[in-house]
Amino acid sequence: MPADHHAPDAALRLAQALIRCPSVTPEDRGALDVVADALRPAGFAVERPVFSEPGYPDTPNLYARIGRDGPCLVFAGHTDVVPEGEGAWRHGPYAGEVADGMLYGRGAADMKGGVACMLAATLAFLERRGDGFAGSIAFLITGDEEGPAVNGTVKLLDWARARGERFDHCVLGEPTNPGRLGEMMKIGRRGSLTGKLTVMGRQGHVAYPHKAENPIPGLLRLASALVGEPLDRGTAHFDASNLEFTTIDVGNPASNVIPATARATFNVRFNDDWTAETLGAEIRRRLEQAAGNAVRFSLDLQPSNAPAFLTRPDAFVDLVSEAIRAETGLTPTLSTTGGTSDARFIKDACPVIEFGLVGETMHQIDECVAVADLERLTAIYERVLEAYFPSA
Amino acid sequence: MPADHHAPDAALRLAQALIRCPSVTPEDRGALDVVADALRPAGFAVERPVFSEPGYPDTPNLYARIGRDGPCLVFAGHTDVVPEGEGAWRHGPYAGEVADGMLYGRGAADMKGGVACMLAATLAFLERRGDGFAGSIAFLITGDEEGPAVNGTVKLLDWARARGERFDHCVLGEPTNPGRLGEMMKIGRRGSLTGKLTVMGRQGHVAYPHKAENPIPGLLRLASALVGEPLDRGTAHFDASNLEFTTIDVGNPASNVIPATARATFNVRFNDDWTAETLGAEIRRRLEQAAGNAVRFSLDLQPSNAPAFLTRPDAFVDLVSEAIRAETGLTPTLSTTGGTSDARFIKDACPVIEFGLVGETMHQIDECVAVADLERLTAIYERVLEAYFPSA
Ligand SMILES: [Zn+2]
Ligand SMILES: [Zn+2]
Repeated sequence: MPADHHAPDAALRLAQALIRCPSVTPEDRGALDVVADALRPAGFAVERPVFSEPGYPDTPNLYARIGRDGPCLVFAGHTDVVPEGEGAWRHGPYAGEVADGMLYGRGAADMKGGVACMLAATLAFLERRGDGFAGSIAFLITGDEEGPAVNGTVKLLDWARARGERFDHCVLGEPTNPGRLGEMMKIGRRGSLTGKLTVMGRQGHVAYPHKAENPIPGLLRLASALVGEPLDRGTAHFDASNLEFTTIDVGNPASNVIPATARATFNVRFNDDWTAETLGAEIRRRLEQAAGNAVRFSLDLQPSNAPAFLTRPDAFVDLVSEAIRAETGLTPTLSTTGGTSDARFIKDACPVIEFGLVGETMHQIDECVAVADLERLTAIYERVLEAYFPSA
Repeated sequence: MPADHHAPDAALRLAQALIRCPSVTPEDRGALDVVADALRPAGFAVERPVFSEPGYPDTPNLYARIGRDGPCLVFAGHTDVVPEGEGAWRHGPYAGEVADGMLYGRGAADMKGGVACMLAATLAFLERRGDGFAGSIAFLITGDEEGPAVNGTVKLLDWARARGERFDHCVLGEPTNPGRLGEMMKIGRRGSLTGKLTVMGRQGHVAYPHKAENPIPGLLRLASALVGEPLDRGTAHFDASNLEFTTIDVGNPASNVIPATARATFNVRFNDDWTAETLGAEIRRRLEQAAGNAVRFSLDLQPSNAPAFLTRPDAFVDLVSEAIRAETGLTPTLSTTGGTSDARFIKDACPVIEFGLVGETMHQIDECVAVADLERLTAIYERVLEAYFPSA
């Protein structure tokens, strides 16, 4: 393992083919054709649903499945990428060039490389098993993860559920390793909650402050109350929840005028101590306590579709962890750090873990991955398939 | 007193003539002609210097003087007005209509009414004295007080100084009475200092706060340090100095991004405990103390041309106060409250006090003054002249 009859550069070739499709959300530019063309010859039934929502661009998705029996293991991922950014790339962002053992290009790490490894591993595994494969493998691939994520995985899961598709476990191939392949897998993600805080005052002239009511000291007081004390101290598998103010905007150009209102936005990344509801209530409680009768404010909590979730360590987590250890010699940290991902939607369908390439350069100029890592990640995914579907 | 040979409605007619010139800064529209035409027949030498400054509109000014001997009493004021504003006036802003005993119009209170009273009082006084007047009276009237105040009183004083003009005392006719004629004169003004505070951080993603450095908590800390503790407790003639934050602007539209910098502006109205320099140093000290090594910030103090100043109560202040009391029955409060005025420039030339009409409606829709107040203010100014220049 890797199997002899598996071309060792299959993942590299697929990754290059994907990178050469400039599929910046919501564009596809042939990326999902690469996936479909890889899976169909191996016997997968491939569906290409396009989802729509007023106010958002239509987005293509791909669902593929082989087998109707046994447990169903899902590989999930996305083929859309963030824009190339401002700055000069040493190697074209859509050229898929290899230099000094590194594959360069937008999406190399996040996550066309990961999708390529899933495909290569599955093809090699199925070829090796031949008619002896009795389980089910599915692919949930979206073109809307980096964008609004409205016409992507969330709708693809609804669509699959409506067709009666059932899944048992999922591996999402996001780049989970900070610096070295094998060091980290993710078994959950913190939730995300955004709030907008407005403090109301009364406009006036700075020379007559008693005739006005400056909202800024009230905002300072309320904001300080939110950042002053930790929300929690972390849980068994999660860091402490963290609140960041992302902006404060008053927009008053006149330095002799006391403004009427002051606005601020904050975002909380929260752990499994909280739901969006309990967290929102705690934030409101802290604000009301700080405000007393002295500060008039309103709090607008944005609807959150990013709850905290955890896939509790169990046999499946162990299985993936062991595959990683066997291939890399590293026992991966079971992490819940970082931003949100489509795992927040998939966890409602089945247990999901995330493991992929090294994310160090993701979203940056000169995004790249080691060609050797593509081969090793393919081998890891093959080990997962072998262990998940033991030979009869 | 008022003198018999002084038409009792002289001030009203002059005020109406001035209001009918729509002299919104920097326009004059004949306003200074009204002043010149009133003073020349009484024997004043009238000069009309126009001042220029790159980037600012040229602005007309008027300097008039009668007499070269004895003490010189100056009447100072402005004939420019703020725009009529948004909203419907019951009486046209430039019509000068009288209704129910009130004179309506932009500038009625601030301060065409006051200028009219100065003129009427001076003409009546000189007519009564005839050849017996041995002192000097000067008028310093500008068309740039409500605007940038760059081509106005500050340059008019330089211009007069260069010509060798010397002044002994000045009455500035701004509307000093909050609600009732006679209740308040101003013997000083607080200074004004504006500062811009920038806190530097490092941009990043809210999910990875340890890789970023959010400037907002630092700004909260620094701003709270400035508003948290009074600058002083007031002085014999001044209220406590007061600091107001007028804006905070981060301008970050992305609720998943930690911003790189946060900016805020504050304005201090300060008393005679401080100069702009000592106050700036104290603010910097407080910021540095609050910042420690934890917050990187820069402070940009805007050049201030508004120092705090006080005309200490003395015989001249008593003289004006007594004129007010004799005419209104009220002993005026000796105040230093409110915004800045051209008195901040005049105080370098001679002691200056401010007394004028009731300012309740100034800068508002339907600005107005009582016709009776125009007559009483004229009588007060006449009493000042009589007391300042005792008959031989
Ligand atoms: Zn991704
Ligand atoms: Zn004024």
